[in-house]
Amino acid sequence: MGMHQKFVELAEKLTPDLHESIVLPKSVIEVVADEEAFQGWRTQETGSISALQSKSFGKDESFILDFGDHQVGYISLSIKSVGSPQDAPLGLKLIFGEMPCEVAEPFDSYDGWLSKSWLQEETIYVDVLPAVLKLPRRYCFRYVKMMIIDTSRKFTVSFTDIHCTAVTSADVRELTPLPANIPADLQAIDAISIKTLQDCMQTVFEDGPKRDRRLWIGDLRLQALANYQTFHHHDLVKRCLYLFGGMTLDDGAVGACVFEKPNPLVDDTRLYDYSLFFVAILFDYYEASKDREALVELWPVALEQIQIGLERLDEYGLVRDDETWWCFTDWHPELNKQASAQAILLYCLKRGLGLAKELEKDQEATFISEQIDRVTSSALQHLWDEKTGFFVSGVTKQVSWASQVWMALAGVLNEEENGQLMDRLFESPPEIGMTTPYMYHHLIEALFESGRPEKALEQMRAYWGEMVKDGADCFWEIYNPNDKKLSPYGSNLINSYCHAWSCTPTYFIRKYLL
Amino acid sequence: MGMHQKFVELAEKLTPDLHESIVLPKSVIEVVADEEAFQGWRTQETGSISALQSKSFGKDESFILDFGDHQVGYISLSIKSVGSPQDAPLGLKLIFGEMPCEVAEPFDSYDGWLSKSWLQEETIYVDVLPAVLKLPRRYCFRYVKMMIIDTSRKFTVSFTDIHCTAVTSADVRELTPLPANIPADLQAIDAISIKTLQDCMQTVFEDGPKRDRRLWIGDLRLQALANYQTFHHHDLVKRCLYLFGGMTLDDGAVGACVFEKPNPLVDDTRLYDYSLFFVAILFDYYEASKDREALVELWPVALEQIQIGLERLDEYGLVRDDETWWCFTDWHPELNKQASAQAILLYCLKRGLGLAKELEKDQEATFISEQIDRVTSSALQHLWDEKTGFFVSGVTKQVSWASQVWMALAGVLNEEENGQLMDRLFESPPEIGMTTPYMYHHLIEALFESGRPEKALEQMRAYWGEMVKDGADCFWEIYNPNDKKLSPYGSNLINSYCHAWSCTPTYFIRKYLL
Repeated sequence: MGMHQKFVELAEKLTPDLHESIVLPKSVIEVVADEEAFQGWRTQETGSISALQSKSFGKDESFILDFGDHQVGYISLSIKSVGSPQDAPLGLKLIFGEMPCEVAEPFDSYDGWLSKSWLQEETIYVDVLPAVLKLPRRYCFRYVKMMIIDTSRKFTVSFTDIHCTAVTSADVRELTPLPANIPADLQAIDAISIKTLQDCMQTVFEDGPKRDRRLWIGDLRLQALANYQTFHHHDLVKRCLYLFGGMTLDDGAVGACVFEKPNPLVDDTRLYDYSLFFVAILFDYYEASKDREALVELWPVALEQIQIGLERLDEYGLVRDDETWWCFTDWHPELNKQASAQAILLYCLKRGLGLAKELEKDQEATFISEQIDRVTSSALQHLWDEKTGFFVSGVTKQVSWASQVWMALAGVLNEEENGQLMDRLFESPPEIGMTTPYMYHHLIEALFESGRPEKALEQMRAYWGEMVKDGADCFWEIYNPNDKKLSPYGSNLINSYCHAWSCTPTYFIRKYLL
Repeated sequence: MGMHQKFVELAEKLTPDLHESIVLPKSVIEVVADEEAFQGWRTQETGSISALQSKSFGKDESFILDFGDHQVGYISLSIKSVGSPQDAPLGLKLIFGEMPCEVAEPFDSYDGWLSKSWLQEETIYVDVLPAVLKLPRRYCFRYVKMMIIDTSRKFTVSFTDIHCTAVTSADVRELTPLPANIPADLQAIDAISIKTLQDCMQTVFEDGPKRDRRLWIGDLRLQALANYQTFHHHDLVKRCLYLFGGMTLDDGAVGACVFEKPNPLVDDTRLYDYSLFFVAILFDYYEASKDREALVELWPVALEQIQIGLERLDEYGLVRDDETWWCFTDWHPELNKQASAQAILLYCLKRGLGLAKELEKDQEATFISEQIDRVTSSALQHLWDEKTGFFVSGVTKQVSWASQVWMALAGVLNEEENGQLMDRLFESPPEIGMTTPYMYHHLIEALFESGRPEKALEQMRAYWGEMVKDGADCFWEIYNPNDKKLSPYGSNLINSYCHAWSCTPTYFIRKYLL
């Protein structure tokens, strides 16, 4: 894999300090089965924290703490023994849940294809009490279930202090309140978006602080956009750009994600759209920061992504499709990615052109302009179905929401035609829908950019607003209002419930409504 | 509870440094069901450690390490990921077993009355590989079962180093080899006795390094005897005597056990025989060490135990029986303790008399002498059944092995009569037998002291020798050759398989055979 040591070193120098805050649990709750509630679980308060501190617990007893809001941080427990001297180790199991399902449904039932090690639990044996346990791992949770495996017949245990040290690299002092004329529901959506972004902002923009806890370029692009409207942490975006730019795959392609520890390392996952997004992220970053030094240094990486992206074009100027997981676009098992990939290539070519002009790279700008024309015309010639008024994708000429949305964002048609394309989507909705907030983001963006701000707001309310009604503290990785247990991983237990790519309503509200 | 701060401070100053040694695993094994094997489990080697290091393991895979001998110490694991970058935490479960049953039978099946937290297992999630895990808890094991809960579809893990840092306060340089004329089977029994003692010698004489990992006075007495013949660690005995003497129960009685951490603390368990044994341990310690300063300081505590012991005598000079767990003697559910308690009182009175004379405490010596006469004559008058030639105990006039053994040790009869009593035990064995090596120790001691050395050796071979044939690396807490899964706790999984009170064959061999 390619390594530009200087870039990686610069990225490491930009590693932010984390802001810490102490958060106390708010109440003791139980989780009750309720068909009306999201995913079938409702919480209800059963006691106060002060009452908890005066109780003691023995074998097989348990309780659930509610921290009142989503937390990313470290947990500390002060435990003492009650009764006769502690004559056996204390066995303790902790389960951390972002959502009620995690503390209600047994983890043993998990049978998905992602590693079950993501499920947040710990089993701890404590030989000597009293003890202050500072658990070394970071957890992501609102709820903590504490289960006493065993004490002994001669002693029980009492929890004198339980608190979380929450961490983030986001500085809340940077936030500007929304004006009072913004409706309350949008105010709520904005606040939850910001909390989502905040909890994902660590030493990189993580995709989800529960899972995968790392920097994915698709998430980064949306986080950066929301960040420019809120926390203005330009250096964190810069660090992430230098990580991706500093460690590429064998042929120079930017990888889909990078790891920070034990040493920065690019993953071997390669996605066509994700490599190209490096160009768009650099474009957005320069727009926000005017950091010309970074632009100059990273432009060769961006240009290389354009060249690699163009290599996939066939003799008709179309992005070659294949049967593998070559392009992300959305978590839809039947979605054909050809048209969206074509559109994303075009979208990124246009941003590349902007950067080339900014840098006065005339030769490269000319080259990119020619490619924009080529990719646009082949899209119109081979992927546009004049009869239905939809873009098609792949050999089956699949019509999907994703293809239309991305073609609108790429500006293959003009703004008026894009508006009509968007209207048509709602009049004759294609069967292949959208499954993630990530894809919904692009729908909303396309609606705003196509002169349909009311529809954009309506759709944002129908999607993110529904999550709020379903009790979201942070916005979720996956949400389908008609299938609330949906998971691309085989179990809703492993879904991330604070997920970067869901944080953009604040970007829309602050960019388009203020 | 009573606290002589000065005694406790002296005890703390005597806390020994531990000797550390690095122990590597010897082989990879599997445990196979085998009705002929001890407790139904046999181990067989399946691979070498070097072969293990070149393997990698994924979800649900496992292996069992054999360290070749019993270990008490800390485990260190060096783990690296293999394949794509580590994209999920590693979930790892470790089970530590002194015996094959522990790594073969699921701990979930445990349903005994002791805390299941004693079962040695850990579940660990490792976020970043490579990692060197130094587990903070001390374990007691020969076998370690490593189970991979999960990695991910993209990586597996390999174990590049696994080792144990074994700890003990015993100094093996103090050991003297047995002469070559001692038969091989006794050489083996001696070596395993010493290993048992060594592994129990930590910052106190522990009863069992797996469970209960603390200082019990009944175990201490036997460990001290074995220690005087082997490691000569007088200061460790002294530390334990000062801990017991420094922290007594409300009325001044010595407690049955003490805890070291977080601060020295006497347990609230009170046993008639155990309090009295303080006198015997001080007697033995003085005999071995001639530490007159300790004798002078601790004599008041010893005298107080005598006085407290005598308070339990009724108007006939008999120790009052009751229905509670008031006296230990042995783990036999039907054993009546009255006669053994009477004998133990007498045994300790005689040692108290020795100490009083040594200290030239004439008045106290006279008092104790009178009590010896009183307790002896009431035993003969009320507990001796001339017709059967056995001592009886309790209202049911129960005849047990324990009562005869202790009456012989107490010297109620003369040496010749004691020898005949011992012979009678084997000719007409009482139904109420012996269940622990602790009780067997007293049988062997009584045989040696009653002029029956051949019988003593025969019995030692029949008991400890059988454990050796059953594969003991250390001697066990519980052993019944006719019921090898016997446990006083409801499961053989929780028995201690390196237990202090089983370490005394080395004492017999070195005291009576050299």
